[in-house]
Amino acid sequence: MANIEIIGLPGVPMVQPGDNLHALAVSALVDADLGLHAGDVLVVAQKVVSKAENRFVDVASVTPSAAAEKLAAETGKDSRFVEVVLSESKRIVRHRENLIIAEHKRGWVMANAGIDHSNVAPGDGHERILLLPVDPDASARALRDELVASYGVPVGVIISDSFGRPWRRGTVGIALGAAGLPAIIDWRGHPDLFGRPLEVTETGFADEIAAAASLVMGQADEAMPMVLVRGLSWTAPDADAAALVRPPEHDLFR
Amino acid sequence: MANIEIIGLPGVPMVQPGDNLHALAVSALVDADLGLHAGDVLVVAQKVVSKAENRFVDVASVTPSAAAEKLAAETGKDSRFVEVVLSESKRIVRHRENLIIAEHKRGWVMANAGIDHSNVAPGDGHERILLLPVDPDASARALRDELVASYGVPVGVIISDSFGRPWRRGTVGIALGAAGLPAIIDWRGHPDLFGRPLEVTETGFADEIAAAASLVMGQADEAMPMVLVRGLSWTAPDADAAALVRPPEHDLFR
Repeated sequence: MANIEIIGLPGVPMVQPGDNLHALAVSALVDADLGLHAGDVLVVAQKVVSKAENRFVDVASVTPSAAAEKLAAETGKDSRFVEVVLSESKRIVRHRENLIIAEHKRGWVMANAGIDHSNVAPGDGHERILLLPVDPDASARALRDELVASYGVPVGVIISDSFGRPWRRGTVGIALGAAGLPAIIDWRGHPDLFGRPLEVTETGFADEIAAAASLVMGQADEAMPMVLVRGLSWTAPDADAAALVRPPEHDLFR
Repeated sequence: MANIEIIGLPGVPMVQPGDNLHALAVSALVDADLGLHAGDVLVVAQKVVSKAENRFVDVASVTPSAAAEKLAAETGKDSRFVEVVLSESKRIVRHRENLIIAEHKRGWVMANAGIDHSNVAPGDGHERILLLPVDPDASARALRDELVASYGVPVGVIISDSFGRPWRRGTVGIALGAAGLPAIIDWRGHPDLFGRPLEVTETGFADEIAAAASLVMGQADEAMPMVLVRGLSWTAPDADAAALVRPPEHDLFR
């Protein structure tokens, strides 16, 4: 595989509900004097996708359920915030003081079902929080289709977020949504250097790309929410990021 | 942060016990017409470090314990292989048919305590398997010190491996060892774009670098076991990769 470049696209403005991500991406690429090449992957931070899709919730408008009040008391969190976490979740996986790990409706196991309120502008006296996109794979596909139409080359799009890990400290970038690339690569049947089957059978390709992009996005991620990854190559068939979610029947840590 | 390049170093020969990793790295850099710049990070695949450190075990020489026989029967694995897994582990976290997740003596929770036999040359009629380096942070530090001495600039070194994740399919690159960089970055006290404390307080910087390098190493990783990552910047203090291991008292998934 050739060398890979991870190229931050500066100058993406603060995204507002209704903004067109394709127009923002094209503008950022023009500003950076970049086109798109076949095989380029554009990584877009979840937060700007959620903002464009107006996934804001005004906390003041939320009435907490009894279950939310109970979990809020056990975790020291705002019961209205917890109500929104519960509404986005299938179940609470673990909780303790100041921590809720939930299984999001789409299967991601993550803190607060992916909801946070950092880098969300305070509203008019209301506290606004931001949900994940409704369907990040669909968001990725829509943006990808528009980019392919504009540039006339096959490219990939990843919607990225940061996840904690149960046994390792620190968050890492992962792919919530993907289009135009294999989010997961199945190596079964590929021999190792000595002709034996490889022991590792699947790699989280889109997660590794998202982690790489995260190095450029940095932490205050609205400063650089779009990152171009150039130089990747693959032969595996496309798979969306939903394929990265381990099915519950294979989850040994429920 | 500027753009980042992930540069594979081709031409690293098959590593043998006793090989000098510094000499191999310098040779690979010369072959690639590359020097080292301040802030460059050299990522080295665990497997070649283990080979250089002669961490081979001849399976035929192993006598399985009763515990190994029992776990082998329950998982369908070779009891001698399981004996070596047990000897490298603090405890077995989960097991089932064809799967052992162990907590390695150094705290990593991983399949087979990190032992595998793909890409290990068959011995003289004996099956050889390869343990992890004894102390990957020390391995990284030794190589880093030699590179700094040779090139006269501060650089980082990461010893990388691939880990599975409990709730996500596919492995991703992670850092087993690190020197000369902050393996984890603590963002506490950094405000978000609106002046509020960031919700994400720690990022797994070295894990993200290892994941990025993994995109170039590919799967049959001895083909490209050394990868140079150029263009990173950081201000956090150095921390070794042991800091990425979540302490047991904070582990909610034991």
